[in-house]
Amino acid sequence: MLIGNHNAARKQADATFQNTHIYVKDKGLYIFATKECAGEGYDGRISGTNKFFHSLKIEAELCNVEGVYMSKNHGPFERLQDVLSDDMSAVNTLISTRMSSENAPRIPEVTAHLVEAGGKRLRPMLTLAAARMCGYDGDDHVKLAATVEFIHTATLLHDDVVDESGQRRGRPTANLLWDNKSSVLVGDFLFARSFQLMIETGSLRVLDILANASAVIAEGEVLQLTAAQNIETTEEIYLQVVRGKTAALFAAACEVGGVIAGAPEDQVDALRGYGDALGVSFQIVDDLLDYGGASSALGKNTGDDFREGKLTLPVIMAISQGDSNERTFWARTIGKRQQQDGDLEHALELMAKHRTLEATKVRALSWANVARKSLAPLPDSPLKTHLDELAEFVVSRIT
Amino acid sequence: MLIGNHNAARKQADATFQNTHIYVKDKGLYIFATKECAGEGYDGRISGTNKFFHSLKIEAELCNVEGVYMSKNHGPFERLQDVLSDDMSAVNTLISTRMSSENAPRIPEVTAHLVEAGGKRLRPMLTLAAARMCGYDGDDHVKLAATVEFIHTATLLHDDVVDESGQRRGRPTANLLWDNKSSVLVGDFLFARSFQLMIETGSLRVLDILANASAVIAEGEVLQLTAAQNIETTEEIYLQVVRGKTAALFAAACEVGGVIAGAPEDQVDALRGYGDALGVSFQIVDDLLDYGGASSALGKNTGDDFREGKLTLPVIMAISQGDSNERTFWARTIGKRQQQDGDLEHALELMAKHRTLEATKVRALSWANVARKSLAPLPDSPLKTHLDELAEFVVSRIT
Repeated sequence: MLIGNHNAARKQADATFQNTHIYVKDKGLYIFATKECAGEGYDGRISGTNKFFHSLKIEAELCNVEGVYMSKNHGPFERLQDVLSDDMSAVNTLISTRMSSENAPRIPEVTAHLVEAGGKRLRPMLTLAAARMCGYDGDDHVKLAATVEFIHTATLLHDDVVDESGQRRGRPTANLLWDNKSSVLVGDFLFARSFQLMIETGSLRVLDILANASAVIAEGEVLQLTAAQNIETTEEIYLQVVRGKTAALFAAACEVGGVIAGAPEDQVDALRGYGDALGVSFQIVDDLLDYGGASSALGKNTGDDFREGKLTLPVIMAISQGDSNERTFWARTIGKRQQQDGDLEHALELMAKHRTLEATKVRALSWANVARKSLAPLPDSPLKTHLDELAEFVVSRIT
Repeated sequence: MLIGNHNAARKQADATFQNTHIYVKDKGLYIFATKECAGEGYDGRISGTNKFFHSLKIEAELCNVEGVYMSKNHGPFERLQDVLSDDMSAVNTLISTRMSSENAPRIPEVTAHLVEAGGKRLRPMLTLAAARMCGYDGDDHVKLAATVEFIHTATLLHDDVVDESGQRRGRPTANLLWDNKSSVLVGDFLFARSFQLMIETGSLRVLDILANASAVIAEGEVLQLTAAQNIETTEEIYLQVVRGKTAALFAAACEVGGVIAGAPEDQVDALRGYGDALGVSFQIVDDLLDYGGASSALGKNTGDDFREGKLTLPVIMAISQGDSNERTFWARTIGKRQQQDGDLEHALELMAKHRTLEATKVRALSWANVARKSLAPLPDSPLKTHLDELAEFVVSRIT
């Protein structure tokens, strides 16, 4: 079966996998689970990675193997996966082992979905790459990579907790496995496991970095919550939210790789700077894609953020340039989340009028450039090249 | 004003403080906030400590100072407070400092309530007492005590997350400050802060103990969730839940005090054993009091656990001894949580028939004895005496 591009691939996947669970069975496989086709209770936990998968440009042959699409296409991410495949296998084994709980059978029940659903493990890959490119030849980077993935997964689980106030709009009804309480408690378990793992490295500096990242992540999430319905939210606050909820873990994932390898301080700083900028870029791209990207091509998931009243960069920019009529519109639809048919289309018109999707794209590209430039102090190596290309690849989703 | 006993005091407090917030302004003050009088959004986060306050036997003069009842009565807990008052002031200062967040204003908003509502800080007190009785004269025990309190508070916040399925029954509507999402994220922030604090001590062993405790707490909570509506739940599983959700932190709180003081291993073991048994006893007492204690005196909060379908020891014992009619009753009321008027009364009758409240009391007393005996390897000291009396005091609520 030949599928020429991402949209066609998704359409095909949607048709094939309607209401089924899709697992990634091996590395190098793509998952096309969308909110609509992933089945009840399956959505959300992997939404971040989902979007990443969705947006891959697939130009090579895809074949349907046991309900899973396999791609033979190799981008920078796959090249990283190839170089680090032994390390990543060790990370996956460690994750499986440490996710289990003899005492509470529900924990493996819930986490099994997360493990099998996989995700590209972008964050642990950063840790592995950073450690290896700084010449590390021990085993602790595997523990740290698993730690980073546990923190990420716990965050996704907690992000999935909803209130009764209608925020569940547009989302599938949670089933027993996925109720609020389970999400919170299993997330807590993963947080605890992540700390157990990082403690095993015996490096207080690494512990410090990851504990600080955890605090910044929580602060970012809380800030997002308070900013959520305030249409006065500035680009500066948006950046602070993004730094917290996304970039902090990217930065820490890179930094601890360098630290565990005993890299010189300027290289550790470089890795941290790379992770931070890559994370910011990654999140801006994600937020832009939610409105169909700079081309504002309308897809079936377009406008999820709008419906949820999330103040992301394209909207923030449109509000700041809007006249009083437009601000009234934003105050109603985002501020009070009183929405009706046609509002999303009107919102997209306003963004087009002020060209905020293009402006958002410029920001994303600029952060990807910061990421690439941050790598300068690191000695040349194939891994450095892969990381450089990865920064380009992240924004290739919108170019 | 003279109030002869606890019930009269509570009645007076209920009348006085109807729908107001009550803060503990200084150590040695009692808080009488009940579910009914504490005001919206105030309940639940401090329910554990609440019950503890409620059950103090107050036989001394009480005076109303600026809306707060002050007791001149001194029990073992107050004696501990007196001996450790400087340390505890330092803990309170540290908690206030570390709870703040420049980046996310909502965090201090939410945590301010927790700080001011106070609580008796039983767990940090155990850490301080353990460290001091083992001859510690540094400052790290203050950090560890604050760590323990942060973990406890985060657990309470996460315990407060509810689902849409009607579990909110009997609880006040959460206001904006206290919605699910805020509870989760602010709890995460406190967890992260707790790890930052413990890392500052630089003791990997202490980190290991507290990270393990965090994992066991989460496992206990998840186990409770799965056991919640399964009327086949055994006393063994109940004990496992209690060990997780309550005793693990008591045990760790005591153990890290000994470890930071560099106490010999047998003394560290003794402290851990004391904390574990004290925690189990504490929780059994709490569960028994929910049915009015061994005397099954009906109070206004009697039966909260029953209404929430929680399988606690008095019910587990009644089910295991029940005939098929009784099991049908329990399957309906607890298993399916289909309750009607008169069910609680009938449940209490069944517990009275099988004398399970008395049997539960025996268990609590027995665990308190285990706690007291655990202290044997520790050298005699006033603090040891206070801890011994504290174990007795915990069960004095039901004797």
